[in-house]
Amino acid sequence: MRTVRFNDQTGYARRGEWTDDGIVADGKTYDPDEVNVLPPSEPTKIICQAGGYMDHRRESGFDDRPERPELFLKTPNCVVAHGDAIELPPGRESVEFEAEFGVVIAEQCRDVSVDDAMNVVEGFTCLNDISNRDDQAEERNWVRGKAFDASLPMGPVVATPEEVPDDATLELRLNGETKQESTREHLIFTVPELVSDVSELITLEPGDVIATGTPFGPDELSAGDVVEVEFEGVGVLENRVIAR
Amino acid sequence: MRTVRFNDQTGYARRGEWTDDGIVADGKTYDPDEVNVLPPSEPTKIICQAGGYMDHRRESGFDDRPERPELFLKTPNCVVAHGDAIELPPGRESVEFEAEFGVVIAEQCRDVSVDDAMNVVEGFTCLNDISNRDDQAEERNWVRGKAFDASLPMGPVVATPEEVPDDATLELRLNGETKQESTREHLIFTVPELVSDVSELITLEPGDVIATGTPFGPDELSAGDVVEVEFEGVGVLENRVIAR
Repeated sequence: MRTVRFNDQTGYARRGEWTDDGIVADGKTYDPDEVNVLPPSEPTKIICQAGGYMDHRRESGFDDRPERPELFLKTPNCVVAHGDAIELPPGRESVEFEAEFGVVIAEQCRDVSVDDAMNVVEGFTCLNDISNRDDQAEERNWVRGKAFDASLPMGPVVATPEEVPDDATLELRLNGETKQESTREHLIFTVPELVSDVSELITLEPGDVIATGTPFGPDELSAGDVVEVEFEGVGVLENRVIAR
Repeated sequence: MRTVRFNDQTGYARRGEWTDDGIVADGKTYDPDEVNVLPPSEPTKIICQAGGYMDHRRESGFDDRPERPELFLKTPNCVVAHGDAIELPPGRESVEFEAEFGVVIAEQCRDVSVDDAMNVVEGFTCLNDISNRDDQAEERNWVRGKAFDASLPMGPVVATPEEVPDDATLELRLNGETKQESTREHLIFTVPELVSDVSELITLEPGDVIATGTPFGPDELSAGDVVEVEFEGVGVLENRVIAR
């Protein structure tokens, strides 16, 4: 099942199922192109993995497999929906896309074992971890570089785990041209390993997101670009880039 | 005015004014010792300054005045109230207190000028930025080290700016003994400078908190300790330390 949040004809924020026939909710079917799609969950926090794929670790200058996932944070002000705009932070030269998939948490949990981890997962979504390299390069903790407004497009749906194959393809297209392509198999840590590790010290809440990291090939964005992240089984997250 | 959130006799989360006679809310006066005090706001994010005081920067090995505030993040799972327990993360050797004062945001804002910054500030509160040094020492971004559960005692009130003198004293007592003592005058960046800088790229929401940093003297906590942070004009934030 693929769950979407959207504004219905009254403006009410409603949850529905994204099917081949349209969005089905409350006994009605809505045309996805005619509704305002919302972020598929409302995370209280977003815990991100840096260097989740070996190929991106190598291009960043790290050749070793990490002992534990390396983490950083994004905040609720980062989240925008499928169809919304990525607003460039003003005066910065290098703002890059990073295709990822996200793990959406189903229930409050802490210190979950690897074996139990999939029981607290609602499903997967597409993410674009927009990164402001000008500030990131000067920061110990990436706050201005990663937690700025509109820096986490998310959606369009949360797909339950059975919709997403173990070797699901992750692809990013910039103005129609493929720029990143990998599969879930290349993740250094599995999803259950990530959920278990993150939850050791941090209580996760329903709707919270673990961003799993990006494969090889992040590159720069400019105003006017259209960027798509496609994760097999979830669908396509499309956003346009604007100046602030 | 000093605003407190607490559970009234029905359990309802109510806002009141903490006066010399007790907590006044809804035409009644409550004894502060007989109610459950809640965190004075519900932040969607907590943006923290590292090295906000020159003396603590020096003990951390930095001798220069930074060009911009250095930032890191804490998350809503960190927040506990006055009277609540600081739960030590299991298996760690070094968990330290850091007395701070926090700036609580009154309204949604972005890119606020230094001159306008106090217009978006509700007031000040006491914070204790509990820090897990075992993990922090191994992280680039401090997530396990700073954003673990119960790592941000906050309260007991938000005091409006006129309650807090420019040279307000900040003091931390561990089991009754003074361990940190400084004044607001020793901050490298002023509160308006911090609010303006943080809000450039990050929309702040009502209740969000900017943690201003800690002066000289963070030290270790053990189960059974009682730790108090007192910021002049706000009051005393008291928490006990427990093992998980």
